[in-house]
Amino acid sequence: MKLWGGRFRKETQFTAQDFTASIPFDRRMYKQDIQGSMAHVTMLAQQDIITEEERDQIIKGLEEIMAEIEDGSFEFKVELEDIHMNVEKALIEKIGPVGAKVHTARSRNDQAVLDTHLYLREEMEEIMEQINRFQQVIIDQAEEHIEVIMPGYTHLQRAQPLLFSHHIMTYFFRLQADFERLQDCYKRVNVSPLGACALAGTSFPIDREYAAELLGIPKVYENSMDAVSDRDFVIEFLSAASILAMHISRLSEEMILWSSYDFGFIEMDDAYSTGSSIMPQKKNPDVCELSRGKTGRVYGNLMSVLTMMKGLPMAFNSDMQEDKERLFDTIDTIKGVLDINTKMFSHIKVKKDRMKESLKGDFSNATDMADYLAKKGMPFRQAHGVVGEAVLYCVENSKYLEDLTLEEIQSFSDQFQEDILEVIKPENCVNTRLSYGGTAPQRVKDQISIGKAILKDNKSKLSR
Amino acid sequence: MKLWGGRFRKETQFTAQDFTASIPFDRRMYKQDIQGSMAHVTMLAQQDIITEEERDQIIKGLEEIMAEIEDGSFEFKVELEDIHMNVEKALIEKIGPVGAKVHTARSRNDQAVLDTHLYLREEMEEIMEQINRFQQVIIDQAEEHIEVIMPGYTHLQRAQPLLFSHHIMTYFFRLQADFERLQDCYKRVNVSPLGACALAGTSFPIDREYAAELLGIPKVYENSMDAVSDRDFVIEFLSAASILAMHISRLSEEMILWSSYDFGFIEMDDAYSTGSSIMPQKKNPDVCELSRGKTGRVYGNLMSVLTMMKGLPMAFNSDMQEDKERLFDTIDTIKGVLDINTKMFSHIKVKKDRMKESLKGDFSNATDMADYLAKKGMPFRQAHGVVGEAVLYCVENSKYLEDLTLEEIQSFSDQFQEDILEVIKPENCVNTRLSYGGTAPQRVKDQISIGKAILKDNKSKLSR
Amino acid sequence: MKLWGGRFRKETQFTAQDFTASIPFDRRMYKQDIQGSMAHVTMLAQQDIITEEERDQIIKGLEEIMAEIEDGSFEFKVELEDIHMNVEKALIEKIGPVGAKVHTARSRNDQAVLDTHLYLREEMEEIMEQINRFQQVIIDQAEEHIEVIMPGYTHLQRAQPLLFSHHIMTYFFRLQADFERLQDCYKRVNVSPLGACALAGTSFPIDREYAAELLGIPKVYENSMDAVSDRDFVIEFLSAASILAMHISRLSEEMILWSSYDFGFIEMDDAYSTGSSIMPQKKNPDVCELSRGKTGRVYGNLMSVLTMMKGLPMAFNSDMQEDKERLFDTIDTIKGVLDINTKMFSHIKVKKDRMKESLKGDFSNATDMADYLAKKGMPFRQAHGVVGEAVLYCVENSKYLEDLTLEEIQSFSDQFQEDILEVIKPENCVNTRLSYGGTAPQRVKDQISIGKAILKDNKSKLSR
Amino acid sequence: MKLWGGRFRKETQFTAQDFTASIPFDRRMYKQDIQGSMAHVTMLAQQDIITEEERDQIIKGLEEIMAEIEDGSFEFKVELEDIHMNVEKALIEKIGPVGAKVHTARSRNDQAVLDTHLYLREEMEEIMEQINRFQQVIIDQAEEHIEVIMPGYTHLQRAQPLLFSHHIMTYFFRLQADFERLQDCYKRVNVSPLGACALAGTSFPIDREYAAELLGIPKVYENSMDAVSDRDFVIEFLSAASILAMHISRLSEEMILWSSYDFGFIEMDDAYSTGSSIMPQKKNPDVCELSRGKTGRVYGNLMSVLTMMKGLPMAFNSDMQEDKERLFDTIDTIKGVLDINTKMFSHIKVKKDRMKESLKGDFSNATDMADYLAKKGMPFRQAHGVVGEAVLYCVENSKYLEDLTLEEIQSFSDQFQEDILEVIKPENCVNTRLSYGGTAPQRVKDQISIGKAILKDNKSKLSR
Repeated sequence: MKLWGGRFRKETQFTAQDFTASIPFDRRMYKQDIQGSMAHVTMLAQQDIITEEERDQIIKGLEEIMAEIEDGSFEFKVELEDIHMNVEKALIEKIGPVGAKVHTARSRNDQAVLDTHLYLREEMEEIMEQINRFQQVIIDQAEEHIEVIMPGYTHLQRAQPLLFSHHIMTYFFRLQADFERLQDCYKRVNVSPLGACALAGTSFPIDREYAAELLGIPKVYENSMDAVSDRDFVIEFLSAASILAMHISRLSEEMILWSSYDFGFIEMDDAYSTGSSIMPQKKNPDVCELSRGKTGRVYGNLMSVLTMMKGLPMAFNSDMQEDKERLFDTIDTIKGVLDINTKMFSHIKVKKDRMKESLKGDFSNATDMADYLAKKGMPFRQAHGVVGEAVLYCVENSKYLEDLTLEEIQSFSDQFQEDILEVIKPENCVNTRLSYGGTAPQRVKDQISIGKAILKDNKSKLSR
Repeated sequence: MKLWGGRFRKETQFTAQDFTASIPFDRRMYKQDIQGSMAHVTMLAQQDIITEEERDQIIKGLEEIMAEIEDGSFEFKVELEDIHMNVEKALIEKIGPVGAKVHTARSRNDQAVLDTHLYLREEMEEIMEQINRFQQVIIDQAEEHIEVIMPGYTHLQRAQPLLFSHHIMTYFFRLQADFERLQDCYKRVNVSPLGACALAGTSFPIDREYAAELLGIPKVYENSMDAVSDRDFVIEFLSAASILAMHISRLSEEMILWSSYDFGFIEMDDAYSTGSSIMPQKKNPDVCELSRGKTGRVYGNLMSVLTMMKGLPMAFNSDMQEDKERLFDTIDTIKGVLDINTKMFSHIKVKKDRMKESLKGDFSNATDMADYLAKKGMPFRQAHGVVGEAVLYCVENSKYLEDLTLEEIQSFSDQFQEDILEVIKPENCVNTRLSYGGTAPQRVKDQISIGKAILKDNKSKLSR
Repeated sequence: MKLWGGRFRKETQFTAQDFTASIPFDRRMYKQDIQGSMAHVTMLAQQDIITEEERDQIIKGLEEIMAEIEDGSFEFKVELEDIHMNVEKALIEKIGPVGAKVHTARSRNDQAVLDTHLYLREEMEEIMEQINRFQQVIIDQAEEHIEVIMPGYTHLQRAQPLLFSHHIMTYFFRLQADFERLQDCYKRVNVSPLGACALAGTSFPIDREYAAELLGIPKVYENSMDAVSDRDFVIEFLSAASILAMHISRLSEEMILWSSYDFGFIEMDDAYSTGSSIMPQKKNPDVCELSRGKTGRVYGNLMSVLTMMKGLPMAFNSDMQEDKERLFDTIDTIKGVLDINTKMFSHIKVKKDRMKESLKGDFSNATDMADYLAKKGMPFRQAHGVVGEAVLYCVENSKYLEDLTLEEIQSFSDQFQEDILEVIKPENCVNTRLSYGGTAPQRVKDQISIGKAILKDNKSKLSR
Repeated sequence: MKLWGGRFRKETQFTAQDFTASIPFDRRMYKQDIQGSMAHVTMLAQQDIITEEERDQIIKGLEEIMAEIEDGSFEFKVELEDIHMNVEKALIEKIGPVGAKVHTARSRNDQAVLDTHLYLREEMEEIMEQINRFQQVIIDQAEEHIEVIMPGYTHLQRAQPLLFSHHIMTYFFRLQADFERLQDCYKRVNVSPLGACALAGTSFPIDREYAAELLGIPKVYENSMDAVSDRDFVIEFLSAASILAMHISRLSEEMILWSSYDFGFIEMDDAYSTGSSIMPQKKNPDVCELSRGKTGRVYGNLMSVLTMMKGLPMAFNSDMQEDKERLFDTIDTIKGVLDINTKMFSHIKVKKDRMKESLKGDFSNATDMADYLAKKGMPFRQAHGVVGEAVLYCVENSKYLEDLTLEEIQSFSDQFQEDILEVIKPENCVNTRLSYGGTAPQRVKDQISIGKAILKDNKSKLSR
């Protein structure tokens, strides 16, 4: 057929098979596919649907195939479309027609989505461990720099002095939320569709719960059509990953700002930045920039699968095959980003003197000066007015609040006592913010203790 | 200033205030704002930061303002920017300078996000109730049409006969997943930022847990900067809403297909479709089309807030003000869609005769014919071949499998016994799929029982 | 019907009409709707489908309705669903049954999308004017600060000295790309679907080109089904708007960075920032933060309409009604953002001394030092090595390159002559980058000249 | 460093280099990278920045490298990060230190983005050709089935009879809009950043226009910072690709519907559908389902790059490296989808008898019956009423309009003459819709003529 033949320069060579085959990407689920088949035939034998001998032959064959794939000797074939057919065909070649019995009371619809459940479950466990590693590094950094003072920002404007440890503990708690979101999602990932068959179940007397149990899955889908049509668990993971990526993007932004010449609060380790062949002072925070940029990729993958699922009628449609590459890309991206950021963050050099120095003259202690008067009973608005005048005086005379003499200060209000000189020191601004969750050292130490307890608890959950 | 003055046709009149004011949309959180303030001053009085008299004055003033807003006599002012300042200013006007004490040990940063937590919490409870209502309607419909048989589809091609009740119960379980996702999200919504102040906490001896308790919130943010910087809870809700919208889009697609002339499986109630002024047979499934279309809106809102949060440094940035309109639009959309779809679905007319009739000749019973032989011990591939020939014979002779005589059937294989005539009846195809979650009537009844138990449990959780 | 009656707390009151009515938002297209009808009846009369008297009656009625809408006396009714029915009903009430003839040879499908074409066309013209205004302000600022030197960044690390005017002209050229994208999009907006009727055209002898001409539209859709099914023109506009929003987000980011305490390159005008009640130095760049945040809204709207259109069969589906609110929100957002940023940008105070001062010691002139040697014939890598040593010497001795004496410099290479002291001055670094598009003052002046010519040309296109 | 050492199960091995290297994906731009370098050195020699001998040596070396890459003997090294360094290093190894001169007056910033411009330009040309091929197939199918009548739908409800050729020509015109969007985008892709260097231009006396001309690029960026910071051209392409993917998703939906048992309007060719091992009648329209599903991927890629660019300060940031994989994935997807859909569509079997048959009794000719009366002068609403009664009569008596006798018809109105029997035949309904763009055969033939002229014009543009 050459309908459009000679009219164009060349014809792209592309077959329907190239277009529809999933083996180039679903081969990475070979282990899960084989494990699923092993559990399936074990159940079939228990239910007397196949014999024990058949079961043993099949399992032995699958073990050999697994070994071949892992040692690289297995040959994947595009013409067999997907991982399921590649394994099944190899099994039949290996053990003869009995191999075909692996597919009794099963269809590719439930098999493919089972593989995805199993694969994602494992990857989520790894990601959750990675999150804990990152949290541990944050705690280590917070403890090491527990009393380093830095400017706190809102609107990227100097607001109030803070502890550096307080600032970075924010990320500890966001990562904890990520961990908990993944835990919740895990409940919906760890459900078995096996035995739903094409869409309606089967007339073979299978035991779906038993097969699930063999795979360590505590729950089966209650409705066979739901089992093969559901991709919520993929999307929910992609959502959780998007929020996690967003957190990393915020950290990246701060690392980039802080390691700029203009902020100068930290220095990246050489291993996590790239130099320029000319400018020795230049350390491009590549790792952070790329981590920030990869946020787009993670968001985009979420949008891809949401779009793909929109408006699909029941039950399985081939559109759904598109879930995997986006899922795999997100898993790879998140794992890479978590790993490299954990390492990067554990190696930052905190320039505490520069941070402290930079507080001079930013008037971030003005709040405390006003609070001082308010606590002495002066109405709030009046206190603000008084401090406002003091600040204006400083600006006009190129002074800082902390440079003023007691006399100068008292010229704005006679409520000011000698202790005001202490009150407006950055250390004091920090130390007095003793409210729960506040930036006072004791409160940050509390947060660290809580953080350690959380981490211990997380780990106990992961080692189940 | 007229830098670009005479050169252009006209100058848009738009002020920075119009641009930045949030009162046009955040006024809908007035109740939560006032409740938050009441809890705050109650705590302040308990901690002796204000007196009990001051507390009482403030609470009385706030109650009056609440009443005025609810009876429509309160005047919102754009120049006061947001709901917080509108209420505070009115309070001061009402009770004098003491009104300003409501803002002691609080900033707009923690106040605004507290309002969002409180508002979203309430709306989520309502949405969860709506989900349960929809689930109830699905169960009612499934029970009413428990043994209606219809064609089951994969790839929108006829696959195997199914129970209509089995098909629609799929949506019950997806809605249940939506419910559970919202439950999980709720834990992260129901956390109090109050007392985090601008970003660093406060030197006033506040009791954050107590204030939270007054608001029925069991948990406070452990880190003050985290409290004011976190919008995860909004995004997580938007994600859950997107998955829910996706489910509705799938149902909508099926309703549209089924009510088409070509499928003809259901008829929409007049109230949920629109006619044409000319064609009396025409019932446009508007409600379903719009519901499907609104999926885009919900997805887009998720993408908006994810994008907005990308790369923001700590702590509060005004960008975050953009979370609210997208959140409100999603809440409104989801509530509208759930409500109207519940009603629409409870009124569909199931054309069971047409469904049944349409099964004739679609060969969706071929699987059962092959399974018949397989169970008699014939190798699977051989059984497929036999049935394939029978189907081909039917196609060539314009017959259906169910039209064949026993003799004709036996001409393809002598393994066929008289019972094959029963086996290939759609009723039988359905009745024998007895595996857990399968489409046999008993299995669907089990699903309905499980569904009822789930609903009871859901309700007990909601009425806490 | 009370299927779920007593089981739940309350029932949301929501009707299908509330759900499907578009009048709350499509009323803003009243003018376009009426203009479209006027053109339509003028054509109908010319083709003798209605009489001239009928035409005159209808047009008079429509003029009265337009006047009533504009003076606020027109009452919109939700039960009439949309702007089209609201106007048509009012017309019939006003002039009697003849009013119904306005709908001869037209359907709501072609009418609604015609209104959208007309509405968007007008708004795009305004947005294009706004872009030109913003471009003019950039040129004005560039000319006013033509020789202000600032640090240039890559990776947010100091790279090479630049002219401030060069930096901001980047935005001029990006806005020009936005303008040109809108121009291209305009060609596809300015096409008439009128006369396509429901989907198949009509048997009335209409003249679609004439009706289009009356509306100033040069082109009609070639295929009636395409005319009512196409929403590309909306999406293409939303895409162009997203790219524009992205540009503004980058400018916003830079404004926020530059007005931070740490950069300190500019000062926002009071009118475009908000203060804090305590800290007089604090000027939160609200306008820029919100502009950056609104990027999410614009992206989300694009994603909404793309999602909505995905997989829709021909021809019109009610899903498409969802295009309008997202379009209107984007138009409003873009217009607001452009207007306020134009004003904001025309009022920034450029702190040129601080910019210049900050160049000291950032080693951003190291490239020029190496280029100096390279031009004398020293192989590039060797030159880099020499300068690397010089920089290291400076860092170890707390000096800047520009502090070194000629003797010190020559100790690194005897190729350095006295002119090296000039070469490494920031002014010189800038002045010598004379390549086309480079940062040398003459090159930036060229860019400004080009910019002025472009603007003149843009305006001539707009006043067509 | 083993901060988190023994506490966790295993440590992911992942280096910053693995994380930041782009060579795994940017190697596909090797040809463009080498062409860019050739043009660059040719210009350098013309400007006497390097000698002619140096130029010749470099070009010879580059030619050898190109050949090695193309014959597979070139070894790409991850430690050399990207395609630029891989080529440059190989060049220096091949021809000695003079090879380093290729990088005179150039930086990786302008080089990398030049490669992207060149690469995308080529791919767009191919995609535009593919679009034309698809358009040709549509025209061929329209001509072959010029007078096949089918039901026309709105809201997926039967509306009015149509020509199949009219319906599919809709896609011709949408693809033409895609073509024109790509043409417009091409203008902004085909611009040269070369010579912008890092961000500020260079002090070498380069000739950017000449280098561009050598590459067949008619225009250079006017501002050097803009040249290296701009990724609009990538996003604009991704937007155009998203709209194109949306069109394909609509076609896919229709192909899936039409090849369903319930519609039965077409039959897919075996090569573009997959069978089931059991059901011979089953042809899953995999290609169409996957094409529809891939829409999500294309939308997601657009969202990824938009997100990535949001809020980036000038000039180059490493985030931007993330543009390439998303761009490549979109190019591959679009090319694959266009190719396979062109083939699929050229092979569909149109079941014209089934289409025609299915029109019986769908009342899609009711509009014409009412128009008949309206043209005789009966007011529209009255005509509707009359036809409504006739339809009701048919429904109640299980008849179709076309079954009624003249007497029966006249019982509803005596305005009906004998010609009404002709008027309501589907052929007549189609034939009389003679308005421009309508579905009458003559009008569709006009569209086909216009389409042919457009295609000829497209091709002349592509062969420039």
